Amino acid sequence: MKAINEELTFYDTASPTLRDGEVLVKVAAAGVNRGDLMQAAGKYPPPKGESEIMGLECAGVIADPGATDREQGQEVGCLLAGGGYAEYVAVPEGQLTPIPEGLTVEETAGVVEVACTVWSNLGMVAGIQEGDRVLIHGGSGGIGSFAIQMCKAMGCEVAVTAGSQEKLEYCRELGADVLINYKEQDFAEELPEWSDTILDVVGGPYLEQNIKALNTDGHLIVIAVQGGPKGTLSLGRMMPRRLSVHATTLRARPRPMKAAIVASTVEHVWPLIEAGKITPNISARFPLADAKKAHEHLDSGANTGKILLVVS
Amino acid sequence: MKAINEELTFYDTASPTLRDGEVLVKVAAAGVNRGDLMQAAGKYPPPKGESEIMGLECAGVIADPGATDREQGQEVGCLLAGGGYAEYVAVPEGQLTPIPEGLTVEETAGVVEVACTVWSNLGMVAGIQEGDRVLIHGGSGGIGSFAIQMCKAMGCEVAVTAGSQEKLEYCRELGADVLINYKEQDFAEELPEWSDTILDVVGGPYLEQNIKALNTDGHLIVIAVQGGPKGTLSLGRMMPRRLSVHATTLRARPRPMKAAIVASTVEHVWPLIEAGKITPNISARFPLADAKKAHEHLDSGANTGKILLVVS
Repeated sequence: MKAINEELTFYDTASPTLRDGEVLVKVAAAGVNRGDLMQAAGKYPPPKGESEIMGLECAGVIADPGATDREQGQEVGCLLAGGGYAEYVAVPEGQLTPIPEGLTVEETAGVVEVACTVWSNLGMVAGIQEGDRVLIHGGSGGIGSFAIQMCKAMGCEVAVTAGSQEKLEYCRELGADVLINYKEQDFAEELPEWSDTILDVVGGPYLEQNIKALNTDGHLIVIAVQGGPKGTLSLGRMMPRRLSVHATTLRARPRPMKAAIVASTVEHVWPLIEAGKITPNISARFPLADAKKAHEHLDSGANTGKILLVVS
Repeated sequence: MKAINEELTFYDTASPTLRDGEVLVKVAAAGVNRGDLMQAAGKYPPPKGESEIMGLECAGVIADPGATDREQGQEVGCLLAGGGYAEYVAVPEGQLTPIPEGLTVEETAGVVEVACTVWSNLGMVAGIQEGDRVLIHGGSGGIGSFAIQMCKAMGCEVAVTAGSQEKLEYCRELGADVLINYKEQDFAEELPEWSDTILDVVGGPYLEQNIKALNTDGHLIVIAVQGGPKGTLSLGRMMPRRLSVHATTLRARPRPMKAAIVASTVEHVWPLIEAGKITPNISARFPLADAKKAHEHLDSGANTGKILLVVS
């Protein structure tokens, strides 16, 4: 089969063989994520024992159900530890999702990873509820734009940061209530002790401001450290307000934990997608052979939606 | 009535008047806590609207049940936001505990605050389970010695740090499995990625080592910052292991939250006390009038047990 390796080369390789509990999926399309850029840069290796082929999410049809009760031909979305940039991929059954009603198989390829990332953190770690105030950094990115829609659909008040008026306007269209241009404003001064939950991708440089921006019993969840891995933490400020800092990644989790996340995401988030409250925004499509171009497009920072590799 | 103010003066003042949901307790004894030392030093003011009289825990008998269904003469333990260093104290009903079977009223006065502090953090925040590995800093102190016994009673493996062989030997007698003299050993090098939960009272200076010492999905809980309020946090190290940092205090919590903590503590910890698995160690008793001497005794760092003020 054809696939894309970490050098982003389009090459021929053997189709994957199935291990216990896995099904073989014929890939229709794969989503391109920031984690893929990091992996291609040598900074985000796949977990031990997982595919060396690129790709953290895809959708397609089951070509071989293996020893599971699944049926050949069933359309599925797939959360992957790797292997999505290929014609075929082996997927643990617990990491399969249905295709949400109203979405195409191709669109589903761009939804699985972001939905599981956002729900596992905001829903399962922070436990956001109707009426909560959520601050989302990088609101116009793939994670941010999904998180805005999900939080609004759940009845939260949403503040976002972004680096231009254009990106902030896009966040407003998605439902954001409070818009902060981080190049002109200090979010901790604008929203002191405001946020019940903060979803952060900046990391170290934002740590002190994030603590100032948290409300009593608030949660800071860091899912990327694009600004740097280390920062100063004021435990003294955290204690009287009982704050928590969580840092997570999705990819490194063991399979049973991923299966639990996929099940909870399908239970809580798929209905919001099917009700039209969260709309995937596919902004660009590239053929699988052009993965390198797709990566360059994401890396340029120009796009405000999801980039797909179309396979079949 | 007689009471002790923040200057540690023994003085005459009016008995407290009851507010909604409060009972009046005639104090038999009050526990002396590190928080009291901080308050007397002007660094830990009582929450708004709470008593200016010292004292975070006591036990005694109900002198006036107010509008509650309690009975006059009932013996109770009391978790307080203040007011325990006195002949009478007004206590929200939700902050009353029964006297554990096998303990005297006086002994109960030295158990309530520490039990609620340890359980609310290790049980309710970290969710420790049988088989978990727990690292307790300052193992020979009031919090530490209670936490060692509770964790062992729950089937956890327990490591402790302390500053002398004598203190470590005391921790071993309480059940600690792994003993670390922090003056001679680096706990993060001794126990890398070992701890499912860490209970810390040092704060900033231990933050980087605590992160190194946490196991995957581990929780660091900081309940005091005796070494300093700020430290360096490596979010990059936290992400792949999905670590959390929590910082809490008990005193600042609103009354309904305190009531929930007291209820959960009585449900989960009182049976361990009644089964003899957690034994309070009362090391010194002072009359109420000698509160200043009791504080000096705690501040000297020489004692390894609980200090009580005996009132009636």
